[in-house]
Amino acid sequence: MLIVMRPDATESDVTRVIEVIESLGFRGHAMPGETRTAVGVTGNRGSVDPAHFENLPGVAEAIRVTKPYKLISRDLRLETSVVKVGNAPIGGGNLAIIAGPCAIENRKQVFAVAETVAKSGARFFRGGAFKPRTSPYAFQGMGEEGLKILADVREEFGLNIITEAMDERGIDLVVKYGDCIQIGARNMQNFSLLKYAGQARKPVLLKRGMSATLDEFLLAAEYIMAERNYDVILCERGIRTFADHARNTLDLSVVPAVHRLTHLPIIVDPSHATGHNYMVNAMARAGVAAGADGLIIEVHPCPEEALCDGAQALTPQQYAELYEQAHRIHEVLQPAEAAVA
Amino acid sequence: MLIVMRPDATESDVTRVIEVIESLGFRGHAMPGETRTAVGVTGNRGSVDPAHFENLPGVAEAIRVTKPYKLISRDLRLETSVVKVGNAPIGGGNLAIIAGPCAIENRKQVFAVAETVAKSGARFFRGGAFKPRTSPYAFQGMGEEGLKILADVREEFGLNIITEAMDERGIDLVVKYGDCIQIGARNMQNFSLLKYAGQARKPVLLKRGMSATLDEFLLAAEYIMAERNYDVILCERGIRTFADHARNTLDLSVVPAVHRLTHLPIIVDPSHATGHNYMVNAMARAGVAAGADGLIIEVHPCPEEALCDGAQALTPQQYAELYEQAHRIHEVLQPAEAAVA
Amino acid sequence: MLIVMRPDATESDVTRVIEVIESLGFRGHAMPGETRTAVGVTGNRGSVDPAHFENLPGVAEAIRVTKPYKLISRDLRLETSVVKVGNAPIGGGNLAIIAGPCAIENRKQVFAVAETVAKSGARFFRGGAFKPRTSPYAFQGMGEEGLKILADVREEFGLNIITEAMDERGIDLVVKYGDCIQIGARNMQNFSLLKYAGQARKPVLLKRGMSATLDEFLLAAEYIMAERNYDVILCERGIRTFADHARNTLDLSVVPAVHRLTHLPIIVDPSHATGHNYMVNAMARAGVAAGADGLIIEVHPCPEEALCDGAQALTPQQYAELYEQAHRIHEVLQPAEAAVA
Amino acid sequence: MLIVMRPDATESDVTRVIEVIESLGFRGHAMPGETRTAVGVTGNRGSVDPAHFENLPGVAEAIRVTKPYKLISRDLRLETSVVKVGNAPIGGGNLAIIAGPCAIENRKQVFAVAETVAKSGARFFRGGAFKPRTSPYAFQGMGEEGLKILADVREEFGLNIITEAMDERGIDLVVKYGDCIQIGARNMQNFSLLKYAGQARKPVLLKRGMSATLDEFLLAAEYIMAERNYDVILCERGIRTFADHARNTLDLSVVPAVHRLTHLPIIVDPSHATGHNYMVNAMARAGVAAGADGLIIEVHPCPEEALCDGAQALTPQQYAELYEQAHRIHEVLQPAEAAVA
Repeated sequence: MLIVMRPDATESDVTRVIEVIESLGFRGHAMPGETRTAVGVTGNRGSVDPAHFENLPGVAEAIRVTKPYKLISRDLRLETSVVKVGNAPIGGGNLAIIAGPCAIENRKQVFAVAETVAKSGARFFRGGAFKPRTSPYAFQGMGEEGLKILADVREEFGLNIITEAMDERGIDLVVKYGDCIQIGARNMQNFSLLKYAGQARKPVLLKRGMSATLDEFLLAAEYIMAERNYDVILCERGIRTFADHARNTLDLSVVPAVHRLTHLPIIVDPSHATGHNYMVNAMARAGVAAGADGLIIEVHPCPEEALCDGAQALTPQQYAELYEQAHRIHEVLQPAEAAVA
Repeated sequence: MLIVMRPDATESDVTRVIEVIESLGFRGHAMPGETRTAVGVTGNRGSVDPAHFENLPGVAEAIRVTKPYKLISRDLRLETSVVKVGNAPIGGGNLAIIAGPCAIENRKQVFAVAETVAKSGARFFRGGAFKPRTSPYAFQGMGEEGLKILADVREEFGLNIITEAMDERGIDLVVKYGDCIQIGARNMQNFSLLKYAGQARKPVLLKRGMSATLDEFLLAAEYIMAERNYDVILCERGIRTFADHARNTLDLSVVPAVHRLTHLPIIVDPSHATGHNYMVNAMARAGVAAGADGLIIEVHPCPEEALCDGAQALTPQQYAELYEQAHRIHEVLQPAEAAVA
Repeated sequence: MLIVMRPDATESDVTRVIEVIESLGFRGHAMPGETRTAVGVTGNRGSVDPAHFENLPGVAEAIRVTKPYKLISRDLRLETSVVKVGNAPIGGGNLAIIAGPCAIENRKQVFAVAETVAKSGARFFRGGAFKPRTSPYAFQGMGEEGLKILADVREEFGLNIITEAMDERGIDLVVKYGDCIQIGARNMQNFSLLKYAGQARKPVLLKRGMSATLDEFLLAAEYIMAERNYDVILCERGIRTFADHARNTLDLSVVPAVHRLTHLPIIVDPSHATGHNYMVNAMARAGVAAGADGLIIEVHPCPEEALCDGAQALTPQQYAELYEQAHRIHEVLQPAEAAVA
Repeated sequence: MLIVMRPDATESDVTRVIEVIESLGFRGHAMPGETRTAVGVTGNRGSVDPAHFENLPGVAEAIRVTKPYKLISRDLRLETSVVKVGNAPIGGGNLAIIAGPCAIENRKQVFAVAETVAKSGARFFRGGAFKPRTSPYAFQGMGEEGLKILADVREEFGLNIITEAMDERGIDLVVKYGDCIQIGARNMQNFSLLKYAGQARKPVLLKRGMSATLDEFLLAAEYIMAERNYDVILCERGIRTFADHARNTLDLSVVPAVHRLTHLPIIVDPSHATGHNYMVNAMARAGVAAGADGLIIEVHPCPEEALCDGAQALTPQQYAELYEQAHRIHEVLQPAEAAVA
């Protein structure tokens, strides 16, 4: 059930609608848009009678939703959501560049990269303190010590921190030290973790699982939002296919599909998708050209010395070139996208 | 590092080797086999000097391991491991039939299925109290109430209980009420959960992720064993491919590959793999013919009324036919497999 | 359009129906079954008026067909077709074993394998004289000289010859020297070649393309049958997926799916699917257990010396073991399958 | 074997080298580049002794080639090849736009599209007279009549004609009426057809097979070139994966990979890859941003009336917008790409 409010509905009209929803034992989710607010209903089994709402003040329409997802839907909010990560926006006509090393290795390395990133004009810093590694014997990340270094990066360079959590304790720590909780591809259907992230009061960057269909990806976001954390950013990072020239196959067609179906912003990760330094810039440019709201990029002062995934990290110089080209391509899309919207 | 003990090594020789390993800051894992014990070493970064061990009493050989996995390897244990689940074995020439409903829905349904399963001669009962569902709005399982029903099934029918856990609290509950912790495909690379399961004192049934390579699958098992829970059973449940006539593509060639590389038993789940009732028996028979150590099968008294995945559940009659055919095919393999071993 | 004749319809009733079909500018395909004949109509754009046929003598019913395939459908023929290859049948309760080397290399090698195959009791011999090779610089097969050797094998051992053709000239030669035209996976959607094979007067063994859906596979068979060659045998030989432990992923669930939808026999090729000698017998057994009508197997006297795909060929001894196990498993299915049919 | 000539080698030096190659029973392929010519050797089994060539006049170096491909390799020609299709170039810093309807349906439709294409500034026209269709009962194309219409389009609008051939007779006809032979994805490993196209004296546009690895794709091009037709253009058109939101998954990372390994130009087909009108422009822009040398696009005056694949065709207005954006993005890459080269 989706309740569309009239453009002139007051805040107390919206509150009243939500009260009625909760009195029926369901959950109400207000989504203010540019011209009107809509209220999503979740928690119901089976359909809800629209008659409960149609005559409430300020209600324009009560619509049955037949799609499996509700809160992510463009039906609920017509404009692309702008998610505030720290003090900077992702989504809504901005091109967000998130850059940094794969893993937090030590303060010196991290500060060297952060300086490059800050100088470029980017406003977001990435870097993993908890690393999901295929082997139990591989480097698993610095943990809380790494998060403290990231907090210092924010202090020093004014960059907003996006970093991965792999379990509930990790989410608590990222909420404490960082600005945005990253949920990795391997945890995209770790539903307990999604629910916990949905209760956190920080935005969530949700990476697509390696073999997730679009529906599964969107419903993973819905898990988070159903717990009332509406600040979700999606991320395409490559899917698993037979093709062996790149680590994964970056599926950029998901970008226009996400924009068509949902109001959520979506960014692209060309570093993990390709696994090869020489492909990263080409695929980063392609992501922007496909309409992505941002990029998440690995940069390392000495890629060949990185403890983790060095082969794909950009040098500072390659990163600078990318930053400039990505913005020029983003400009090409602006009038056209505006015309479409 | 893998330390092979002499056939005549005493228990105290093994203990001494492990003490030396721990004194170096590593972890030692004793794996007794039919003719000799081997001790795996984990926790080392880089290689360990064999000289530490070669002159200890009872040591036959210290071998450097170059493969990414250590404890699952056939190099460590030559025979297929027999994992005891409750009072019955999985692996080692037995054909384990695990049957039951997809989800625990209510006591009456569960007892009806359990009677069918017990009468067939099977010794393991399955059924989910926590259900990983793609949509947050779908039935999520009965939780602890469901586990209590399963415990009653064991009491009443003598069946050993295998049931899924999705988070740490779930593992604690399965340990309390059940006999074997199932880790689902979506959590195969939930490394925090694998480590927690590795500290539990119940066996683990680990399902292959939908897009997991063989190496990733084996290293997920290694995560559990590195925490000293050596009772791991693998399960092939279909992989995600372009093919659309079945829900997933059951990849049976993983069965001989697992048997070649590891000492772990592997079973097959034809119900989730195919998603179609009419395919289940054909693929179950195929799994046994490929050499699987068992089957995990969905049975439901009225498949069309099941709350979850009813389309794939067998009727009691279909299940009875399968049980009989599976055992006859398993017999065909016996002399040949014995000859190979 | 599908015209079902009455059980007591005479041959001239069927002929009359076909004459009416042809007079409308379409093509009629009579498919005699155990209890009644059905006549498929192809060549029509849009639907045909049943009134043309309903009052003809011997007609029981005229049915509109909405599926994309017509002639392969079980609606047209209730029993599995038995295809005669040379003097031996494939389909219909028989287990056909087709064995031989990958490529025809020389007379001595071929005769050595043929002796093994004939002695086992198998009635079909395989071996490629035209080899589709990924590289233009790899061995491309002996051509017509190889086909002559195959003809001599039939003469000497009484084995029926199944061998691949890659173009029209190749089909002409296989028709001249062999008993069954094999169309390889890479040519499954070479529609010009399918049409030409449909005009040949020898049966066709059609291999599934590496990324063919079930529908595409069935429609490729339909291409052949629409040209009035109804003797088509399907072959599952593995699909392309991300999994890297075997060359391809043998998709055995296609076997029950083909049997449900069509009357065509389907066999399984575990040699090309796995690419590894040690997996072949396990997957061959699995194919039979899944209900396949036969196996196509590579055997080589000295696999390590083979010019092409040696790693997957069975030794004569492995082949003998497989032959025996496959037949024992096939027996297990007999009563059950009979009961189903 | 690859023989690199000195920058000052004369044409007769090159001729002499080729004569020596042919006298050894092999085939020589001269590839002139900007600063020097290299000569590839094919037809040899095993390695050739460099001593045959090292002392010939004009020879700088004779290099053993260990990769499976020779003539497509960047080792042979350092610059990206520019392929002349009719009177216009593909490759080498140009952005080639190839546009037209999916199928040639009738003169009026074709001329309407051609006018749009010519007006945009594009120099290449596409449209199928032979259509590979999954079902034998679907529209198979107009055949030679369609090709005559295409020849008239060239006459009238000065557009160069690229059109598909599915068999040898089709190649003869495309050579007669068109400017470039398209080999479709389903025929990418139809090796007999590739060899025949290699003997034609018109350029070949080779589409990647739906499940072709990069190596298989490149070796298919090598098949054509080994027959001495060096004018090959590659085309990425989407691969088959589990993802179901688009018809295929456009694998743009193949673009930088092809440019790294080969000297061949590569273009992108976003229409067939996505199958959805609303995705085409996004993916076309992405293709250009990834570095593709061109685009092949379906345009139709009334997409909803198209006999074939209408859902993906652009309207003339959408096409015009794409044409402009694609060129602006291509400009962004120019300085950077030049710097790299």
